[in-house]
Amino acid sequence: MRTQVAIIGAGPSGLLLGQLLHKAGIDAIIVERQTPEYVLGRIRAGVLEQVATDLLDEAGVGQRMHAEGLVHTGFDMLFNGTRHRIDLEKLTGGKKVMVYGQTEVTHDLMDARKAAGLPTVYEAANVQVHDFDTTQPRVTYEKDGQTHTIDCDFIAGCDGFHGVCRASAPRSAIKEFEKVYPFGWLGLLSDTPPVHHELIYVNHPRGFALCSQRSATRSRYYLQVPLTDKIEQWSDDAFWNELKLRLDPEAAEKLITGPSLEKSIAPLRSFVTEPLRFGRMFLAGDAGHIVPPTGAKGLNLAATDVKYLSNAIVEFYQDKTEAGIDSYSERCLKRIWRAERFSWWFTSIMHNFPDDGAITGKLQQAELDYLMHSESGLKTIAENYVGLPLNFGE
Amino acid sequence: MRTQVAIIGAGPSGLLLGQLLHKAGIDAIIVERQTPEYVLGRIRAGVLEQVATDLLDEAGVGQRMHAEGLVHTGFDMLFNGTRHRIDLEKLTGGKKVMVYGQTEVTHDLMDARKAAGLPTVYEAANVQVHDFDTTQPRVTYEKDGQTHTIDCDFIAGCDGFHGVCRASAPRSAIKEFEKVYPFGWLGLLSDTPPVHHELIYVNHPRGFALCSQRSATRSRYYLQVPLTDKIEQWSDDAFWNELKLRLDPEAAEKLITGPSLEKSIAPLRSFVTEPLRFGRMFLAGDAGHIVPPTGAKGLNLAATDVKYLSNAIVEFYQDKTEAGIDSYSERCLKRIWRAERFSWWFTSIMHNFPDDGAITGKLQQAELDYLMHSESGLKTIAENYVGLPLNFGE
Repeated sequence: MRTQVAIIGAGPSGLLLGQLLHKAGIDAIIVERQTPEYVLGRIRAGVLEQVATDLLDEAGVGQRMHAEGLVHTGFDMLFNGTRHRIDLEKLTGGKKVMVYGQTEVTHDLMDARKAAGLPTVYEAANVQVHDFDTTQPRVTYEKDGQTHTIDCDFIAGCDGFHGVCRASAPRSAIKEFEKVYPFGWLGLLSDTPPVHHELIYVNHPRGFALCSQRSATRSRYYLQVPLTDKIEQWSDDAFWNELKLRLDPEAAEKLITGPSLEKSIAPLRSFVTEPLRFGRMFLAGDAGHIVPPTGAKGLNLAATDVKYLSNAIVEFYQDKTEAGIDSYSERCLKRIWRAERFSWWFTSIMHNFPDDGAITGKLQQAELDYLMHSESGLKTIAENYVGLPLNFGE
Repeated sequence: MRTQVAIIGAGPSGLLLGQLLHKAGIDAIIVERQTPEYVLGRIRAGVLEQVATDLLDEAGVGQRMHAEGLVHTGFDMLFNGTRHRIDLEKLTGGKKVMVYGQTEVTHDLMDARKAAGLPTVYEAANVQVHDFDTTQPRVTYEKDGQTHTIDCDFIAGCDGFHGVCRASAPRSAIKEFEKVYPFGWLGLLSDTPPVHHELIYVNHPRGFALCSQRSATRSRYYLQVPLTDKIEQWSDDAFWNELKLRLDPEAAEKLITGPSLEKSIAPLRSFVTEPLRFGRMFLAGDAGHIVPPTGAKGLNLAATDVKYLSNAIVEFYQDKTEAGIDSYSERCLKRIWRAERFSWWFTSIMHNFPDDGAITGKLQQAELDYLMHSESGLKTIAENYVGLPLNFGE
């Protein structure tokens, strides 16, 4: 087989890249280790920045998002027993975010890809990337008892944190930066109306909590838990009881509980790979960087990577220039580090760090108190939450 | 002996309190363990907020400060090889800071106290505070082979971090919050013109540095050093060489070196005691809280404590109300925690944390880069550096 771009991974990054390349008339094959059902089963964040929604529109898959997604103009921060609203729209001069689950984005992209008849190989075993230090890279995989080869011009590594692409980059050419947090997020998805029409981020002595949502009838809640906790320890009842303890009285009373559709514990990690390009292979999304979920930057960052990568590849074919390809890594990393910084900060300020001294909690409270009373402080939160402009700092 | 207020400690806090009480016609005796020369020999920060300079004016000791002090409308932050100016005046709508050494402030206060003929007992040994849980507290000390007693209405603990007042508060009534940093500041004072007309705060892979000044001909420089370093290891030459390595080429070339007048290593600490009142005894300044020196909040916080305390005591005698006394601790602590937060943050963002992973330095750079390019980010730095308004958040 021969294609122009071999995309490894059929998550939102790979699918979005495929769609954007298709719009530009560039051939791509997506190779995915899992089944479509498995990919759709991953529950991830659900807050999209304007940059991401614009890109989904550009890819022609924004229709259902605009119909079913919820536009949020603010969110609440609850600490020391009081909720404070961050008025995103007012603080950023009109910017908003879109609440629309990653699963739904993936679904829409899958449907569009299917409708366009574009090739995706699911359940590809033993995927390997070769010769990306030459102009003739190859991808091999096994399926139905046979080894298949894809000859291509470029390999796009959209295969996530545990993917084969980053793992195949030469160790000497790669720098990795990592921070692991001393807690996890226990998430619960339920078909219950959200406790509040906007998100509530909670700093509580018992630990962080987040009241999030996927729609007017589907809620997603999270609790900070020790990394040693097992999911079997957390009955639905135990989850709801603990959540109520971390909310303000009004929210605790209003909370509507119900059986969980999904429940899982995820660790929190900050991780960045430098660079994101190795010859003719590029890393995009979780393959190159991970943020802790506080602030929901993961999918948004992946979208920007994909935007820069598709632009660079389109320029390569249409304008015969490698400028976009050459600047891809640096351009992405600038934005990535800014989002890593915000996600790390938002995680640090809202969670309980059990091994730190008592002063840590006092400094957290002082910082939150300062920020809530400073117009500039509020703006720093808001402008990062909605996403810094693409040309920020240029 | 009998007085209205027994002040323990003749540093800037105690002297300023004495002066303000004197202005209001309230008697006070200051008791100090050391000699005047010893007190003046302590080299400390030299950046005064408007609130502090106003208070020195109110105390009638601002004349020399206005004549000799340097008004600064901004400062530089140097990181990743580039200096960025924080335009305090523009970012805060006209606020400035005054560069005038703590030693000079102490000097002016000593002179004023002497001129007014107010009593200060120097070289008082074995100072003890008694019965401050009653309305008749006492202070005892030894001098010239005799034990002396001061009967008073109030005891003001202005005796610093290692003083007797906080140590005499009942352990069960006190909460202490502390953070010790894994490095110290090596300071050098020299009669050389400052390298720059404003301060330069330096974030460098080799460690933090600060180019500060006391006047147009006297400079104060600092280097982050390991806590294990001894002052004997640092010749003047070694200091200047290391400083040059941490500056940008322009500053390194411009730097004028000279023999040190003083050189010392100080540890960095964040520390807060709660509460600051124990019956008829009050803690003010370093006796109640310590900030790391980054951002020079120590003397400024002490000044606000003293302002609130003198107001409260004056109200007690003039208006027969204990309202000010009752709210002293809470009122001070609000401002203290905000300054602790800023000092901790400014320390964290500018120093090298050798035990943290490589990601820490990258997140620092990302945060600094973000702040320098965000109007709101710059304002958060500036409004804290010049000092938040006294009524902030009310």
